[in-house]
Amino acid sequence: MPTSEFALIDRYFATQRSQRPDVALGIGDDCALLIPPADQHLVATMDTLVAGVHFFANADPASLGHKALAVNLSDLAAMGAAPAWAMLALTLPDVDEHWLEQFCQGLFALADRYEMQLIGGDTTHGPATVITIQAQGFIPPGLALNRDGAQPDDGIYVTGTPGDAGLALAAAFGTVVVAPEYRGYLQQQLERPEPRIAQGLALRGIASAAIDISDGMAQDLGHILQRSRVGARLEVDRLPLSRALAASLDHEAALGTALASGDDYELCFTVPPDRTALLTAVAAAWNCRCTGIGVITEEPGLQLRRADGSAFSLQRAGYDHFG
Amino acid sequence: MPTSEFALIDRYFATQRSQRPDVALGIGDDCALLIPPADQHLVATMDTLVAGVHFFANADPASLGHKALAVNLSDLAAMGAAPAWAMLALTLPDVDEHWLEQFCQGLFALADRYEMQLIGGDTTHGPATVITIQAQGFIPPGLALNRDGAQPDDGIYVTGTPGDAGLALAAAFGTVVVAPEYRGYLQQQLERPEPRIAQGLALRGIASAAIDISDGMAQDLGHILQRSRVGARLEVDRLPLSRALAASLDHEAALGTALASGDDYELCFTVPPDRTALLTAVAAAWNCRCTGIGVITEEPGLQLRRADGSAFSLQRAGYDHFG
Repeated sequence: MPTSEFALIDRYFATQRSQRPDVALGIGDDCALLIPPADQHLVATMDTLVAGVHFFANADPASLGHKALAVNLSDLAAMGAAPAWAMLALTLPDVDEHWLEQFCQGLFALADRYEMQLIGGDTTHGPATVITIQAQGFIPPGLALNRDGAQPDDGIYVTGTPGDAGLALAAAFGTVVVAPEYRGYLQQQLERPEPRIAQGLALRGIASAAIDISDGMAQDLGHILQRSRVGARLEVDRLPLSRALAASLDHEAALGTALASGDDYELCFTVPPDRTALLTAVAAAWNCRCTGIGVITEEPGLQLRRADGSAFSLQRAGYDHFG
Repeated sequence: MPTSEFALIDRYFATQRSQRPDVALGIGDDCALLIPPADQHLVATMDTLVAGVHFFANADPASLGHKALAVNLSDLAAMGAAPAWAMLALTLPDVDEHWLEQFCQGLFALADRYEMQLIGGDTTHGPATVITIQAQGFIPPGLALNRDGAQPDDGIYVTGTPGDAGLALAAAFGTVVVAPEYRGYLQQQLERPEPRIAQGLALRGIASAAIDISDGMAQDLGHILQRSRVGARLEVDRLPLSRALAASLDHEAALGTALASGDDYELCFTVPPDRTALLTAVAAAWNCRCTGIGVITEEPGLQLRRADGSAFSLQRAGYDHFG
């Protein structure tokens, strides 16, 4: 068993398949050397997963490797960026070869799918597993999907079926009972979220603003509203609920979960009315749902409205680590 | 007291002074947007500090902010890079406003000196303080100071006085008694290391290989030897010892500390014989010592030789987190 930090890094992290031509020097020196693309902007993000906070300490390591990268890819997707490079800071309480092998398998399988290369990082000892990934991608200048571009009358859309990760977590904690036929699907949604990279790329030039709803849709849409200095009216009965969510909770609780639970890596975005047809055309090719759920308003604040015109009341606005 | 993750980030991290023209979008969206320099390579590194492993849990937060960035700047220096952008992943057991304010003060004071900008990151809750910084800089293609360029007959040099951080740590643990007049200096060396950015920049086109000796000089020089497929002969009595180190340990123990203790952020580098005069010329302007300590050999392995020609025996070859 290799106990040296260097042997570990050599053995598990230097064996990936992805080898990008824009990486002049990868893992193994003081720094990586990268060749940035001409005439593109870099898009950079960094997210941390902590054992006992963001995942169960006994979580499947392959799923964890997938998710640690997926949550960063989701941020790149929310900007419309094409993924390129990743760095990994891994803090571990002990050296478990099987864990490392599985973790790398999950991480590299996802990286390979997006032709991303792990270019460096740091492995350290610590009291708990802490996984930080920094990811970078590219986007042509002026095409990034920022949070501050939403305008009154823009339509509000969401990919996939938000609330599934929250339901999966509630089922894991035993606060909701889920029928057996939905358990595999929900576990997949929680542990192996699919970053919406293709959707983000397709939304360049179409969406006026975008965000990923990792902290809960209501809270994350709130960031778009705040940065764009606008409000929104959501028709909550239009929220796309998975069969698992619709079958496991009463309708009101299902809507609340779709609006406020975290850990969904879907995109919420806004589209000006004159680009609705464009969106319909590109979304037809997607492997996930794309649902119009409301409209941006001049009046600030987030209004949640039922189909009968009454107001929907949301108890919990989203996920906050220190909340 | 702001308990929201977002309020924390807004309050402490969005108020820095450095505003670089190559940052199109900084903190506050899903990702940062960066304008890479034309005709330069990016240089990227990422290092983690863990409470109880890399620093004492009650360490001065301003010093910690400094050091967390300094250890990354040291990696950029070892490549000869000019610093540009940083990202911070901060895992904290609780929210302590004073700690955060001081941490940011130390971090931003160093960032400002190198015109670096914090462009994003992630703040999370966890069982212990874990600080990961990802730093990027620039270097013209072909000028990076890699580890693999050392050739037989190149001289081996080191900046500063290695061993001081190791001595400071030994003093903190009570295994060495240090005279009062040296304590302030040693604490500074351990807690506020000065990254050798100016030296790294000056060594472009002069050094054939370089590394920072954060894991101990013998071990880190070993990485140059391994990657360059050469050996080295060090004249250990030429090692530059600080007065603090020379006064606190017998000569043999002081040499061993200079060779094998970690946490010094000095540069060890090699210079071809025909560039020795160039090195002497540029090093005259440095604010730190630059000492020739040996020569690269064709024969592999690291020979440690005393002034009388006898071999010097080193018990511990460096610092290994999982060792």
